[in-house]
Amino acid sequence: MFKFNPAFEAPTGSPIRELFKYLAQPGMISFAGGYPASDLFDREGLDAAAARASQQPTLCLQYGPTDGIAVLKEQLTHLMTRRGTPCTPQELLVTTGSQQGFDLLLRVMVAPGDVVLVEQPAYPATLQALKLQEVDVVTVPVDQDGLDVAALAALLEAGTLARPPKLLYTVPTFANPTGATLSLERRMALLKLAARHHFLIVEDDPYGDLRFSGAALPSLLALSDQVPGSRDWVVHFSSLSKIVAPGLRVGWMVAHAEILRRCVVAKQTVDLCSSPWTQAIAAEYLASGALERHLPKIIDAYAVKCRTLCDALDEHLGDAIAFHRPAGGMFVWAQLKGGQNASDTLCACIERNVMFVPGVAFYKDNIDLTALRLSFAAPGVAEIETGVQRMKQALALF
Amino acid sequence: MFKFNPAFEAPTGSPIRELFKYLAQPGMISFAGGYPASDLFDREGLDAAAARASQQPTLCLQYGPTDGIAVLKEQLTHLMTRRGTPCTPQELLVTTGSQQGFDLLLRVMVAPGDVVLVEQPAYPATLQALKLQEVDVVTVPVDQDGLDVAALAALLEAGTLARPPKLLYTVPTFANPTGATLSLERRMALLKLAARHHFLIVEDDPYGDLRFSGAALPSLLALSDQVPGSRDWVVHFSSLSKIVAPGLRVGWMVAHAEILRRCVVAKQTVDLCSSPWTQAIAAEYLASGALERHLPKIIDAYAVKCRTLCDALDEHLGDAIAFHRPAGGMFVWAQLKGGQNASDTLCACIERNVMFVPGVAFYKDNIDLTALRLSFAAPGVAEIETGVQRMKQALALF
Repeated sequence: MFKFNPAFEAPTGSPIRELFKYLAQPGMISFAGGYPASDLFDREGLDAAAARASQQPTLCLQYGPTDGIAVLKEQLTHLMTRRGTPCTPQELLVTTGSQQGFDLLLRVMVAPGDVVLVEQPAYPATLQALKLQEVDVVTVPVDQDGLDVAALAALLEAGTLARPPKLLYTVPTFANPTGATLSLERRMALLKLAARHHFLIVEDDPYGDLRFSGAALPSLLALSDQVPGSRDWVVHFSSLSKIVAPGLRVGWMVAHAEILRRCVVAKQTVDLCSSPWTQAIAAEYLASGALERHLPKIIDAYAVKCRTLCDALDEHLGDAIAFHRPAGGMFVWAQLKGGQNASDTLCACIERNVMFVPGVAFYKDNIDLTALRLSFAAPGVAEIETGVQRMKQALALF
Repeated sequence: MFKFNPAFEAPTGSPIRELFKYLAQPGMISFAGGYPASDLFDREGLDAAAARASQQPTLCLQYGPTDGIAVLKEQLTHLMTRRGTPCTPQELLVTTGSQQGFDLLLRVMVAPGDVVLVEQPAYPATLQALKLQEVDVVTVPVDQDGLDVAALAALLEAGTLARPPKLLYTVPTFANPTGATLSLERRMALLKLAARHHFLIVEDDPYGDLRFSGAALPSLLALSDQVPGSRDWVVHFSSLSKIVAPGLRVGWMVAHAEILRRCVVAKQTVDLCSSPWTQAIAAEYLASGALERHLPKIIDAYAVKCRTLCDALDEHLGDAIAFHRPAGGMFVWAQLKGGQNASDTLCACIERNVMFVPGVAFYKDNIDLTALRLSFAAPGVAEIETGVQRMKQALALF
């Protein structure tokens, strides 16, 4: 009866959200979600921030500027400076989660049929956003050191792409789903490629602060000052969702003024402004120093959970599963050594009340059917142990 | 250097937001904004609602369902029932302001070059959203009884449109900018046209509860049950921005399940979910009955402000300005009888510290250069008196 746009004629929703129904199963242990741990939210710090924000009722309750309220923009530039990536408030746009930043960028710069490069395996919502925009997605493989920049260079120089690529999407630090971190050498090489071939690097960095081992690496945006001509070609996204709380829906993007200005125009018609109330709470939270006080607790807890998961996988499933220990973030990426299909084993796991996300959700092509993503963020330590034992029982069937 | 999509090569921002810089002028009295009155926000009721919401930290702080948190969806269906427009939670999608609902609908249903009908003069962000989507916008005139449905019928039957129209955008009750309300007779006629010609009626209803005189009219969605075949063709948008607070960024849309389902898929890639924290506050606010207790205060205050503005216009500018008294909402739409250009008079007004929005902002074509929009919502009663006197001084120059 209705005439929908082609991409929406028979749309499929998020493959991960499709798994949600099993979460309601009593006793289910889930390694599936990309959710941060609810019990690690800084309730006290956020309640105090909310109380201070509510003393500024007009700021919280009235419409706000499309690019974000000034006090939050200032706090976010301070946070970026502490991360070694200084930027000005004029280079920064507050978004309704960093998800919105990518959507705004696509609107402004990418048309149907344009070539967009994406690391693979990749964050599913990125693949979905590109699919709905009818973009020509070209994937670049990832290994334990992140994006395979040599493969990207070969691709760019082979001249086989239908058009020059508009942008490349990557999560260089503690990637979703692989947990991998792009090496310094590759970061520099990637920036050189962007400067030479004039494509935007979309650096999505929601997890970078969640490092529990090894030394921090500078972001691509930070390193771009060392690679002539590359700074203009980096668009940096980040978010408070994984380090404070997703419910704030506070993300931000840092980009060249010409790009940012157009994203602001797009945002005027998309949602006018992100909630100034949650922006004000976020600003108060950051200004109080609560993030620096509380974040180590989240990192310590994730370090323990990650070690528990990896140790349990080694102990109980060492023969069946291959994986790398991540140095931060929320995810362990694994392969079934026996070549089993992860989707089939998921069914057996769900029967035993344990869940993960089969790797297929993270691929556009060249799917590794044996792959799976395990998130250690949400379940408790005891649950992680039990969950791996249940997986062992399920895998014993295959 | 960068290659933007054509609509974003040289984008112009909101013409109203361009006026913001003058608001900082000391002593400025503004009839320009579309903002509700900050001093009428129900601070007490919202603080109490926020306190109750914060007792549910996981609900507020974690990711929420893309279609909205269940408790808010339930409260919004109750609100729709009280408005005489019952709907089910399955027909309702919570959006980040109702602005987002229109954007999602365009994504799902409207492609560049499609014909979209818009009442004119119209809400500028609607015109801007359509322009950025490169839509073929066809305008339908409005008079003091709202959309000229006879003109629309003639247009549809003339066969002159490049394609069958996908949708018609209208604010049938206390329109922005005209303040006009579509008569019952026209509402029925419009529904019949939609059922016959198979275009969606986008009924944007942010102001309908703000009636201070006359009897309420049923919404198009409510009336659609009386016009066979029309219910499927009504998409209804509403919002808490004008009746509670814009800072919540809580809007909603009610539509056929096939449309709604696709808007949810689009929203997954747009912002994943609207802030569950402000959703929870809104749900607590609605559940407490605070809206019913507080809304009469807003309506009474707007009634006084509207009467003050209209009386002052009659008294001081009766010879210079023609207008109709609205029965609700936030706006008075006027014409300069002497044929002066409203943009020119605005410059003289800004020098005398009073502002309005020149009508040009609300037109795509056939611009009435003598028109202007005056909002009585934000300024105080004494300011309204003074503002009109300043306008008189400015107009005396022309």
